[in-house]
Amino acid sequence: MLTGKKIAVIGGDARQIEVIDRLIQRDATLFLVGFEKLQRQFIGAKHVTMEEILGEDLHAVLLPVSGMQENGEVETTFSSKPAVVTQEWLNRTPKDCSIYTGISNKTLDEMAKKAECSLIKLLERDDVAIYNAIPTAEGTLLLVIQDTDITVHGSETIILGLGRVGMTVARTFSALGAYVKVGTDNSAERARAEEMKMKAFPLKELPEKVQSADICINTIPAPVLTGHVLAHMAPRCIIVDLASKPGGTDFTYAKKRGIRAKLAPGLPGLVAPKTAGRILADVAVRLLEEQ
Amino acid sequence: MLTGKKIAVIGGDARQIEVIDRLIQRDATLFLVGFEKLQRQFIGAKHVTMEEILGEDLHAVLLPVSGMQENGEVETTFSSKPAVVTQEWLNRTPKDCSIYTGISNKTLDEMAKKAECSLIKLLERDDVAIYNAIPTAEGTLLLVIQDTDITVHGSETIILGLGRVGMTVARTFSALGAYVKVGTDNSAERARAEEMKMKAFPLKELPEKVQSADICINTIPAPVLTGHVLAHMAPRCIIVDLASKPGGTDFTYAKKRGIRAKLAPGLPGLVAPKTAGRILADVAVRLLEEQ
Amino acid sequence: MLTGKKIAVIGGDARQIEVIDRLIQRDATLFLVGFEKLQRQFIGAKHVTMEEILGEDLHAVLLPVSGMQENGEVETTFSSKPAVVTQEWLNRTPKDCSIYTGISNKTLDEMAKKAECSLIKLLERDDVAIYNAIPTAEGTLLLVIQDTDITVHGSETIILGLGRVGMTVARTFSALGAYVKVGTDNSAERARAEEMKMKAFPLKELPEKVQSADICINTIPAPVLTGHVLAHMAPRCIIVDLASKPGGTDFTYAKKRGIRAKLAPGLPGLVAPKTAGRILADVAVRLLEEQ
Amino acid sequence: MLTGKKIAVIGGDARQIEVIDRLIQRDATLFLVGFEKLQRQFIGAKHVTMEEILGEDLHAVLLPVSGMQENGEVETTFSSKPAVVTQEWLNRTPKDCSIYTGISNKTLDEMAKKAECSLIKLLERDDVAIYNAIPTAEGTLLLVIQDTDITVHGSETIILGLGRVGMTVARTFSALGAYVKVGTDNSAERARAEEMKMKAFPLKELPEKVQSADICINTIPAPVLTGHVLAHMAPRCIIVDLASKPGGTDFTYAKKRGIRAKLAPGLPGLVAPKTAGRILADVAVRLLEEQ
Ligand SMILES: NC(=O)c1ccc[n+]([C@@H]2O[C@H](COP(=O)([O-])OP(=O)(O)OC[C@H]3O[C@@H](n4cnc5c(N)ncnc54)[C@H](OP(=O)(O)O)[C@@H]3O)[C@@H](O)[C@H]2O)c1
Ligand SMILES: NC(=O)c1ccc[n+]([C@@H]2O[C@H](COP(=O)([O-])OP(=O)(O)OC[C@H]3O[C@@H](n4cnc5c(N)ncnc54)[C@H](OP(=O)(O)O)[C@@H]3O)[C@@H](O)[C@H]2O)c1
Ligand SMILES: NC(=O)c1ccc[n+]([C@@H]2O[C@H](COP(=O)([O-])OP(=O)(O)OC[C@H]3O[C@@H](n4cnc5c(N)ncnc54)[C@H](OP(=O)(O)O)[C@@H]3O)[C@@H](O)[C@H]2O)c1
Ligand SMILES: NC(=O)c1ccc[n+]([C@@H]2O[C@H](COP(=O)([O-])OP(=O)(O)OC[C@H]3O[C@@H](n4cnc5c(N)ncnc54)[C@H](OP(=O)(O)O)[C@@H]3O)[C@@H](O)[C@H]2O)c1
Repeated sequence: MLTGKKIAVIGGDARQIEVIDRLIQRDATLFLVGFEKLQRQFIGAKHVTMEEILGEDLHAVLLPVSGMQENGEVETTFSSKPAVVTQEWLNRTPKDCSIYTGISNKTLDEMAKKAECSLIKLLERDDVAIYNAIPTAEGTLLLVIQDTDITVHGSETIILGLGRVGMTVARTFSALGAYVKVGTDNSAERARAEEMKMKAFPLKELPEKVQSADICINTIPAPVLTGHVLAHMAPRCIIVDLASKPGGTDFTYAKKRGIRAKLAPGLPGLVAPKTAGRILADVAVRLLEEQ
Repeated sequence: MLTGKKIAVIGGDARQIEVIDRLIQRDATLFLVGFEKLQRQFIGAKHVTMEEILGEDLHAVLLPVSGMQENGEVETTFSSKPAVVTQEWLNRTPKDCSIYTGISNKTLDEMAKKAECSLIKLLERDDVAIYNAIPTAEGTLLLVIQDTDITVHGSETIILGLGRVGMTVARTFSALGAYVKVGTDNSAERARAEEMKMKAFPLKELPEKVQSADICINTIPAPVLTGHVLAHMAPRCIIVDLASKPGGTDFTYAKKRGIRAKLAPGLPGLVAPKTAGRILADVAVRLLEEQ
Repeated sequence: MLTGKKIAVIGGDARQIEVIDRLIQRDATLFLVGFEKLQRQFIGAKHVTMEEILGEDLHAVLLPVSGMQENGEVETTFSSKPAVVTQEWLNRTPKDCSIYTGISNKTLDEMAKKAECSLIKLLERDDVAIYNAIPTAEGTLLLVIQDTDITVHGSETIILGLGRVGMTVARTFSALGAYVKVGTDNSAERARAEEMKMKAFPLKELPEKVQSADICINTIPAPVLTGHVLAHMAPRCIIVDLASKPGGTDFTYAKKRGIRAKLAPGLPGLVAPKTAGRILADVAVRLLEEQ
Repeated sequence: MLTGKKIAVIGGDARQIEVIDRLIQRDATLFLVGFEKLQRQFIGAKHVTMEEILGEDLHAVLLPVSGMQENGEVETTFSSKPAVVTQEWLNRTPKDCSIYTGISNKTLDEMAKKAECSLIKLLERDDVAIYNAIPTAEGTLLLVIQDTDITVHGSETIILGLGRVGMTVARTFSALGAYVKVGTDNSAERARAEEMKMKAFPLKELPEKVQSADICINTIPAPVLTGHVLAHMAPRCIIVDLASKPGGTDFTYAKKRGIRAKLAPGLPGLVAPKTAGRILADVAVRLLEEQ
């Protein structure tokens, strides 16, 4: 339980509502900045300004999934004005107050360091990445079912990378009946793919393997679906590139060859915002309770 | 192989193209009615009129998935004019010529009988219904992922009926991580559900079971999601009704209660026309070869 | 609940103990014949002789899984003497008293008919057969793992028949990573196998298919693994024949060719007697409550 | 291919035969020490003594899975006398000759270092450990099916650790229908377990979780099933401890409490020696070809 713990929630979108609900369930005392447009009442939570919180003995400060911009501004979906976090403000939080954010950048890293606050980057955690792989895989499925005139069942599907996301995507497509081939240079990942009744191959064999593929899903954040590889791909094959921008596909070349290729970032928030919020809420609450 | 067999393909949509391709592969001699707008050339196939075919020693006549209208008209997606099948025309086909159609109606049944042609209704066959369950399940998944803000994984999903379609839908949702509860009055279907690690319950328990459901998928062609049942359902639950028109849901009452409910007929042709066509092609060719 | 219902349990093995326990849980009043050697006390149950029960207003009579011999004797694992059911005894049970047995024979069928008692043959029921398929599949797995020097994972496994048992065996081996090919002449079963990501073939192709098989499991109660078929099988392949005696394998020919083949009847009782008992208990109790 | 490569295979059991066969397939030139009792002829392989090989330009030396004893002796299942590897012998192998072994010890480590040979410990490789998890899981299944009177299906099964072996064991038992709960202190492993539709818990909750378990499988090489934990376990529960000797179970205490607990080392070689050999053969050949 978080009884008596004071927590500031500064900005965020629908996902942060799930976090707020979970914190209230655990009996935390909340200060909300940037949620005044919400119609809902939150019992045990107060709408405040940045300045009003400062007198409080804060246990933690929660920033949105998207973190903070270089200028200190924080995204506030449910407010007409942005919230701004300054170095000075942070310096005045208590010693053991920690900052939770989805992702971070150099500015936030440095501000936290100077203020001697520990900074928890939720999206970088292995457990969060694995839980998020679930809505990512379902979003991928959605795109593939929409964009093909065949079923996933019986299709030849290549998955590139068998890390935290690749593992879930591969298991999902295989469970639906696709013949999955996993491309990765990591021999342990190839062994795991084979243990899971999939085929596996090293990336140097990619040009040959794409020839008969119907669907190709990339999770490797490096240029793997290069022009050279795409030259071997059948035009009927569709590409869903999940890797962080700019993805691993030569999109210009794909377009030239008439291959449908899509960069699909941020699927969890798009496809299942409620689940995506709960994932963050569960992990954040657990960490706050252990803190 | 179908070498030397003469087959008339009369009308149809994209799915029939798959059938034509497969028949050509098996070396059949084809007469096509209602495909003249197609840009593609078919080797071994001739575009003809109904009358032109009559002189031929036909092995079989293939009608579209949708069969024939009461007035003898046949749907022709790739032609500007409909094709018409008359009793007189049928009477003049050879003795052992058989008619393949997706579905039939009283008129077609009677015309075939009078003409002493055997009539094969592909969509009524168990094997075709089971193969078609695959694109149906994928289409259902598409609708559910689109219409919810949670993941299928971890959701509580009720499937009503564990027949040819229900079995596939239940396995698909379970494989994706949903907690599936199968409602059916058939005790063997309940046993099968439990063997597949799902929960099962008789339909009289439906009012109680829907209370905690996130997703409800119906395959029973009878009024099961009645007003009485819907009164117990949480408004967050979504309904996808797959049963043939008018479905098994009281849609008016659902709307009143703010429950999102969708009747979703004809998913295979919408979601995966190419696969749907291949399913028909595979079974039709096998039957033609055995004929 | 079975409060106030009087039930006679006549003979049986460890499985019947599960039935007794479940009946006591449901508050039935029990009369036990043939269990006096058991060390356990059963609350609400009385050890009696056949004659002593006759005065009672019996709701049902439960015979063992093995039913009754031609001479009226009933197997009693937990007694030093057999129990005997006579026509005269049966005639004196109340009108609506029903008889539950695992399997039956002509004698029992006729005796029940004459006594105007309804006779429920539990093992013939679809639901019981499907639940029993679970321990049957696990027993088959045990035999196969014991008798091979390779893993089931990656093996080529042929399953003959995709009925109640074949379905579970096929799913089990496939889930463990075997490449399963289902042989059956039923086109709906072939479609279901393919829907479940297995291969399927008609039995006429069996001679060709066995050539590369590592494991072959038969569930068809008919001579399918004939000398002609076995002549094509590699000697490394092992056969587990689950079909009721005499099985579907030419065991003499198999031995001659050095192929290891095993007839494996009654696996549920051998491999998981407790589960096997619970299956009967669950279904019997449900039927008794509905009676 | 390994054409022209000279390789010495010194000792080993049935698994090494698979390695030899694979090497011959890849056209290597082999020198075998310790295989003279084998009835089989190997084309392209010569039976020799340690001394006879020394003149050869060896590409690699293959030791058995069990490696080498402190005194240099190497296990030779197919010979009447052991083979002995000395420092002097090793020193005289060519510069780029590498040594392959299953496991190593301090003596072998040092001898290889002094001789400036690279030493490849196959069983320590992630890929080999993952492939070996397959026969390990099947062996575990065998033990569990043999030792319980219930089915794995429907059982409550605890798996401790979700590493290379735990992952496969957990997936196997879950696929068979067990309700799997994974105990691990690694939050990423807990996330993966939940993604795979299992339950997960930290080890501090073990005393509470074991109370309702039917089956408990340990893969953690540390004392986890302590007396304190076992005190909460139901006596019906069985324990299979896969962790390397001495396992993670207080076996003395388990015995006192009447809990059946088994330390089960070396399952791959026992349960599926052929597959276990092929795993080593595949990886060794790949590495030799890349060398
Ligand atoms: N689109 C979305 O909605 C969404 C959602 C979540 C994540 N993502 C993105 O998806 C990507 C994968 O995330 P993840 O959590 O699965 O990462 P991860 O666990 O680190 O896995 C990455 C995979 O790529 C391989 N890889 C990395 N760099 C490589 C290189 N230079 N060459 C070859 N292989 C390489 C890794 O192999 P090794 O293990 O051997 O390095 C591993 O197989 C990231 O870019 C992430 O931002 C997107
Ligand atoms: N939306 C689409 O794209 C699509 C695609 C394919 C099929 N369909 C439709 O889906 C429905 C199911 O098709 P199917 O092939 O699965 O049929 P099916 O194999 O006959 O299965 C029907 C299921 O409904 C149960 N049922 C039937 N009548 C019932 C009643 N009056 N009361 C209670 N249960 C009843 C059956 O139980 P018993 O076995 O005990 O009768 C069985 O569980 C049909 O209406 C079909 O036209 C729709
Ligand atoms: N060993 C054990 O411990 C154990 C346990 C349970 C059951 N069994 C035995 O296993 C066998 C199968 O039981 P089940 O419940 O699965 O039966 P089932 O549901 O009737 O299935 C039988 C299968 O065999 C096929 N078949 C039957 N007769 C055939 C024939 N003459 N030619 C070709 N195919 C034929 C059926 O195809 P169709 O559907 O097209 O007829 C179906 O695929 C039975 O003999 C049963 O006694 C053994
Ligand atoms: N019986 C057999 O036939 C057989 C076959 C193969 C392997 N094995 C043995 O099985 C064991 C597991 O092998 P593996 O390849 O799966 O190893 P692994 O990949 O390293 O996994 C070990 C698991 O144990 C956890 N763990 C390790 N030390 C721990 C500690 N002190 N406290 C809590 N958790 C701890 C690990 O968690 P972290 O990842 O967080 O450390 C991980 O979950 C080894 O002892 C191996 O020798 C036996």
